[in-house]
Amino acid sequence: MSLQQYQARCQARVDAALETLFVAPQPELVRLYQAMRYSVINGGKRVRPLLAYAACEALGGAAEQANGAACAVELIHAYSLVHDDLPAMDDDDLRRGQPTTHIAFDEACAILAGDALQALAFEVLCDARLSPLDADTRLSMLASLAHAAGPAGMAGGQAIDLGSVGRQLDQAALETMHRHKTGALIEASVRLGALASGHSDAASLQALQDYARAIGLAFQVQDDILDVESDTATLGKTQGKDQAHDKPTYPALLGLDAAKAYAGELRDQALAALAPFDQRADALRELARYIVARSH
Amino acid sequence: MSLQQYQARCQARVDAALETLFVAPQPELVRLYQAMRYSVINGGKRVRPLLAYAACEALGGAAEQANGAACAVELIHAYSLVHDDLPAMDDDDLRRGQPTTHIAFDEACAILAGDALQALAFEVLCDARLSPLDADTRLSMLASLAHAAGPAGMAGGQAIDLGSVGRQLDQAALETMHRHKTGALIEASVRLGALASGHSDAASLQALQDYARAIGLAFQVQDDILDVESDTATLGKTQGKDQAHDKPTYPALLGLDAAKAYAGELRDQALAALAPFDQRADALRELARYIVARSH
Repeated sequence: MSLQQYQARCQARVDAALETLFVAPQPELVRLYQAMRYSVINGGKRVRPLLAYAACEALGGAAEQANGAACAVELIHAYSLVHDDLPAMDDDDLRRGQPTTHIAFDEACAILAGDALQALAFEVLCDARLSPLDADTRLSMLASLAHAAGPAGMAGGQAIDLGSVGRQLDQAALETMHRHKTGALIEASVRLGALASGHSDAASLQALQDYARAIGLAFQVQDDILDVESDTATLGKTQGKDQAHDKPTYPALLGLDAAKAYAGELRDQALAALAPFDQRADALRELARYIVARSH
Repeated sequence: MSLQQYQARCQARVDAALETLFVAPQPELVRLYQAMRYSVINGGKRVRPLLAYAACEALGGAAEQANGAACAVELIHAYSLVHDDLPAMDDDDLRRGQPTTHIAFDEACAILAGDALQALAFEVLCDARLSPLDADTRLSMLASLAHAAGPAGMAGGQAIDLGSVGRQLDQAALETMHRHKTGALIEASVRLGALASGHSDAASLQALQDYARAIGLAFQVQDDILDVESDTATLGKTQGKDQAHDKPTYPALLGLDAAKAYAGELRDQALAALAPFDQRADALRELARYIVARSH
């Protein structure tokens, strides 16, 4: 199966599970649930759910066992985008070529939809139907997700990002920012999927964390490269926005060629981390290659 | 022990536990952690932690067992206030007579601090040191908190509230709003504390839920009464704000005298729900009486 086929299968699986979550329990809540659904059901590539499913399958689990993990990480990702796009944050009107949630609804509704999506992520992980696992495993998944989403993880990364606009960051500081802002949730996606397999141990969790750390950073380096090279139509967002906001990027820091070489190194690190795994980790391997090769 | 003494003891206990949570793990995150701490460590009365401790003790648990529950519900409460105060929401500059978080820091920082506090609430509940309980019990606590905080609970209540400004609500619609916006977290506070005791069963959880539902509503009715009757100095917030925003209130709906009578009825319902409990539930009883008798 090609990565594209595997990705489509993961996307269909997680979208079917996500779609069940947005049924308003009473009429007064219809608009909030619509805003939540609008923020999540958007044709997204579902990279984080794919990582959860692929990590679960790499350890011999059935993909279905990772449904809760896949939904939860995507809900956290979706909430973070809704809040990042707000006027007081990145002030973006477009996301995937569509109006952002605060434009399509309003700002208060977008704040609340984001808040509700975060809570829903934890609620979903508590649901035994989506995570048919023993209580200790589910607690580990919840703890990992909470840590990854919180102040020492993604929310902290966004704070570091906001604090760094217009400042000269060195490569170490830039990586600290990315490790928090995007890396923490990517690592959690892989970890939750691995835990959901029921077959993880300390060594496999560590290897998968090394893999996740490398691809998380590679993803960001490639994003920065694409922001320089692509046009707005291909990206579905405003091109050159990072530069225009004077945000630090890898091409600005290292030069474009060195940034590309660095993305390739990170891909190789990710592949090396997977050396102990058999062919069931091939989707993870393909993804590492794709992240650096993609054009959007 | 008087309710005042019991309250002071609960406040000291939860504040000591909360204070440990705001140590930034690295220099880049200091400002975010400061904003989180500012939003939480504010001399608050800690009504929700008190409910968690008191429910735990009513069922024969040691108060310490409910430390995780107490911190978690207070963190959710604190995050909801930070976001409610934002310009796009209630647009409040003062809270307890102090600048709100987006005034003391900035709007982006307040959004992120709120987001981080919500994640931290779930992280704290996963911490076995703060909740020394079996995994199934902790999962039940996490599920209850996530449901109470999310779109079918508190976040939904805020959405209903925003949608109701300037509209004529009847009493049923007003209660639906309050049951979500404030009631859900008050019920969760009692439920998490009861679960933390290790001695809860279906009957005691139901009785405590009936209690929590009645005092949650009584609290709101009394708040509406105080908003009409008190002055700004006593309340520590802008007096008459609900009326000025044309928000529906119980005095506006029922008249002031009938609103007071209703608060008394709800207190009596709360006390009736506690009939099966012995003197270990006295703190809960005293609180029900206090809520309706308080002047701020």
